[in-house]
Amino acid sequence: MPLYGIPLARRLGVPETDCLTIVAGESSKTRSEWARLTDLMLERGFGRDSVVVAVGGGVVGDLAGFVAATYMRGVPVIQVPTTLLAMIDASIGGKTGVDTDAGKNLVGAFHEPVLVLADLPVLRTLPPAEFRAGLAEALKHGLITSTGELDWLLANAAALARLELPALRELVRRHVAIKVRVVKRDMHEAGVRKTLNFGHTIGHAIESVSNYAMLHGECVAIGMLAEARIASAMRIAAPSLVDRVRAALDALGLPSSVPRQMASDTILAATRTDKKARAGAVEYALLADVGQIAAADSGYGTSVPDSVVVDALNASR
Amino acid sequence: MPLYGIPLARRLGVPETDCLTIVAGESSKTRSEWARLTDLMLERGFGRDSVVVAVGGGVVGDLAGFVAATYMRGVPVIQVPTTLLAMIDASIGGKTGVDTDAGKNLVGAFHEPVLVLADLPVLRTLPPAEFRAGLAEALKHGLITSTGELDWLLANAAALARLELPALRELVRRHVAIKVRVVKRDMHEAGVRKTLNFGHTIGHAIESVSNYAMLHGECVAIGMLAEARIASAMRIAAPSLVDRVRAALDALGLPSSVPRQMASDTILAATRTDKKARAGAVEYALLADVGQIAAADSGYGTSVPDSVVVDALNASR
Repeated sequence: MPLYGIPLARRLGVPETDCLTIVAGESSKTRSEWARLTDLMLERGFGRDSVVVAVGGGVVGDLAGFVAATYMRGVPVIQVPTTLLAMIDASIGGKTGVDTDAGKNLVGAFHEPVLVLADLPVLRTLPPAEFRAGLAEALKHGLITSTGELDWLLANAAALARLELPALRELVRRHVAIKVRVVKRDMHEAGVRKTLNFGHTIGHAIESVSNYAMLHGECVAIGMLAEARIASAMRIAAPSLVDRVRAALDALGLPSSVPRQMASDTILAATRTDKKARAGAVEYALLADVGQIAAADSGYGTSVPDSVVVDALNASR
Repeated sequence: MPLYGIPLARRLGVPETDCLTIVAGESSKTRSEWARLTDLMLERGFGRDSVVVAVGGGVVGDLAGFVAATYMRGVPVIQVPTTLLAMIDASIGGKTGVDTDAGKNLVGAFHEPVLVLADLPVLRTLPPAEFRAGLAEALKHGLITSTGELDWLLANAAALARLELPALRELVRRHVAIKVRVVKRDMHEAGVRKTLNFGHTIGHAIESVSNYAMLHGECVAIGMLAEARIASAMRIAAPSLVDRVRAALDALGLPSSVPRQMASDTILAATRTDKKARAGAVEYALLADVGQIAAADSGYGTSVPDSVVVDALNASR
């Protein structure tokens, strides 16, 4: 807020008292924080002609977006993402929401921002672990899109690690385009948008079991390798996919191992509360190969036996 | 629930344990009830392929609609209105939401039902006061639409009071059509939908001051007469409009007087938290004449000096 929020508010002529803050981290993505922010806006007398400006990472975007989606049945939101993950993923496509005890993003709304403003130099003030976590979603985009995109990312890994602006600009440009292309084809996640969930069924479960102490991107990184193992075990993908995913995670400085203290059964149980469940069955967006999601005919969702999930988690240790 | 909910669930093959109930009345339209119902659905493991069936009056429709709108970012809702008000008004047009301490419907979403099922005989088991309250919204429709619609309603007042099915059928048919026509032209209430707010700025304020002890339709009835007085005092409408509104309220057995114990200043203060406020100013949808809403050029909203509001309220005693 002191670094970017207040200066932006000053330039917009917004009084500091209208700048609302939250405690950083996933633990703020709750219904009670949503209610608190809504009530603060009501106290200040904001009408239906208000605009919410969400300055921050994915948590701020999701939470402020949901406040905007439901404030007097919806006011516009402008997303100003300040993390790599929010720039290339969370701020695009209108997903907003909060978590409940039962799981992540279980309450929310589709509410497209009227503007997304990604100001690249802010990435240079991001903690390194946060930046790397954003690269996990970039890797996911590469893996689900094409060998060309994957190769570009790996070829530029060093320049990106040095936070070189031309590389950052090209990264954000490419990955915003990938996300927009998918979302435009399927806003409400009835089909192809589900491919963006690669790595996320296991990823969300690990994040939930860690009590949101781990970063979303770190969990997705581990989830992508585990889900590549699942695809390989089910003969949906060749075993070489597992090696490619692991090599890419290493090249980008991303974790690939399931945390030692997390039992595989606990993670398995946590997958069951995932939104992607249909009629009670958990569905995975599995890769058949780089650029190729399995089960395109049946809505990109694959059911996986519990034993295969547990084996894949155990192999990722 | 025993009268209509359980029999409907049985016919649909839905177990009774999946039928969730609320305490009747506006006091249940809260964020905490919304959260409770959401959590019960999550506990039961309902996925994104669930459908919410809202069986009840306006409160049930608004609350269950908002649960559906935000459950896993939105699942379909079927509205089965069991009150006249819900049949001709609340169930149509996708407005869902809950109240907060600051006022009515301040949190919510637009979420159109996939189906609205109005089963007319249920109106015969409605408490008479609830039925009359529904006629207030029918009168509002008549007043904002045309002399023809108003005349039809008044000519059929006796048959409607006797709950004769042909009259009920024609009433619901006409008034669903009126509401649909307005909502289709302006789903998000940027313009013409605001005309449906005639009587509602004062009406909502009275309802809020009564702590929701009074029925919504009763408050709208009183609000329509007060707002007709405002329009007359501002020379937007002829004084005869006041007489026509009062005569119509009498003919339909609806109240027209502001409750004695409510101070006009208290009601005035309550109008300020209304969603219809823009840039802090309260806007009224005023009638210039039957079938003619004022200020069509400027979005159907008229600002009214406080003294005019207080005079109109005092005259309605």
